[in-house]
Amino acid sequence: MTAANFADRAIEALRAKGHPLCVGFDPYPEMIPALFGDARADVGAVEKFFAEILPIAARHAVAVKPQMGFFEPYGEDGYGLARRLCAEAKAQKLIVILDAKRGDIGSTAEGYARAAFGPAPGFDADAVTVNPYLGIDGLLPFFDVAEKRGKAVITLVRTSNQGARDLQDVVVGNRPFWERAADMIAPLAPRLMGESGWSGAMAVIGATWPKEAIRARTLLPKSLFLIPGYGAQGAGPADAVAGFVPGPAGREGGFVSSSRAVLYPKEANEAKTMPSWRAAVDKAMSEAALALRQALSG
Amino acid sequence: MTAANFADRAIEALRAKGHPLCVGFDPYPEMIPALFGDARADVGAVEKFFAEILPIAARHAVAVKPQMGFFEPYGEDGYGLARRLCAEAKAQKLIVILDAKRGDIGSTAEGYARAAFGPAPGFDADAVTVNPYLGIDGLLPFFDVAEKRGKAVITLVRTSNQGARDLQDVVVGNRPFWERAADMIAPLAPRLMGESGWSGAMAVIGATWPKEAIRARTLLPKSLFLIPGYGAQGAGPADAVAGFVPGPAGREGGFVSSSRAVLYPKEANEAKTMPSWRAAVDKAMSEAALALRQALSG
Repeated sequence: MTAANFADRAIEALRAKGHPLCVGFDPYPEMIPALFGDARADVGAVEKFFAEILPIAARHAVAVKPQMGFFEPYGEDGYGLARRLCAEAKAQKLIVILDAKRGDIGSTAEGYARAAFGPAPGFDADAVTVNPYLGIDGLLPFFDVAEKRGKAVITLVRTSNQGARDLQDVVVGNRPFWERAADMIAPLAPRLMGESGWSGAMAVIGATWPKEAIRARTLLPKSLFLIPGYGAQGAGPADAVAGFVPGPAGREGGFVSSSRAVLYPKEANEAKTMPSWRAAVDKAMSEAALALRQALSG
Repeated sequence: MTAANFADRAIEALRAKGHPLCVGFDPYPEMIPALFGDARADVGAVEKFFAEILPIAARHAVAVKPQMGFFEPYGEDGYGLARRLCAEAKAQKLIVILDAKRGDIGSTAEGYARAAFGPAPGFDADAVTVNPYLGIDGLLPFFDVAEKRGKAVITLVRTSNQGARDLQDVVVGNRPFWERAADMIAPLAPRLMGESGWSGAMAVIGATWPKEAIRARTLLPKSLFLIPGYGAQGAGPADAVAGFVPGPAGREGGFVSSSRAVLYPKEANEAKTMPSWRAAVDKAMSEAALALRQALSG
């Protein structure tokens, strides 16, 4: 049995919302307000924090993106919490992108794919981020499971950090190296293609580099993008949607992720009560969504 | 407080054993014998299996390498089991290499580093494998924690799979791309250098490519190597130690990892009783160690 195609589900949700906001779930232990407890010592504080974040995200965002690097320091309790949050986010009709940046070969990659996409005790996430360094045989096991289960595989192509220059921008025959990663996944797009014409053979394209996003769009015309780096990492809304193209309901082409700016806005950090904290987070997410919507219509 | 340097601890253990065998903990659910239960349905079977593997590995190997991609499909129970196995292996004086192939940027990489190297609920592993695609700022957080806690960071440089050709072997100015990854970590070797002259700025160099191992040794003269692909992936003992160099107690230079060939040898899979299973695994590990010892003296 083949599940409903991810790209079709995603583009329908994106068009319905009218903006591509994805809320990154990055539990910085020292940034979670004391209202929730001490997240440096207690994963319970992280759980309480996201129990409050989830319904606000469900109002304003299309997707959420739990970042495993922030959950794993809590050991199996953090791992389990991330898994429960994925299930709760799906119950609230959010698309779930597991930001795990996994990458290995053969049967090991298959294990990671089952963990990310499989039913409990798997994450049953809609999409997972993967690293291309090991080559095509590290990616195919993810595509195999994704195809069967209606999921998306999001390959790191051009990331948003300064260090992306070290390897990704090495020039090979007049082209930056990251274009080789794009070339590697382009032929896989048909495997996860929806009736919408979009594919779940997705790519991470950092928002801090709008020129790269435009170039990546020409290399991967059918791939939805995951665009991190919006907000705290310095990219503005226009930069973030540089790789979007005209669609039936306005410009479209992927998800734009914001984490710190919408989880820990200054007003929320200074809030003394839960209602004022909630209002401040609601405002931050609402404004982030609005700015993206305006960038798409402008 | 700075903990004892990893490279010094490792080289002492390697010289004492006289061979570099590392046993990969790859729990293939369908390969774990029915003697232990059904590992496809029950993580308890995996736990029983490794409870028996551990003392045999402690007799024959220098290190063990739990592969997270095989534990994560069991959810938080698998994650927790991997963590307990690390603790038990350390209690049995084995060096613990966490094969997680993590890789992210900034504070996320810091989270993964704390998970891998930190005390409980962290893994407190001696070393962790990391992916270089995101650049130096994805590696430095691992080096920061490793330096403080006497650990090693094992960067994927040239892997053992066929797909390694797709990106790692792309030619850039007459050199394969993987040499750029080697160039990136070479300047970090002094940060994890021991009095032995070896460094915990380690590199994964696939055993199936002995020419690459020799070349990698010239680029990373002080780095201990982790060499996977010995045994089931087809590399022989001489190929596996191609990157080793003369030392005071014979040739040395890293760990050679074998998984399927020593966990699931044919005789063990056919064993009807625990004693005969134990004897078969003992024999497989003993032979793998002996073959490596002979390759080093030959």
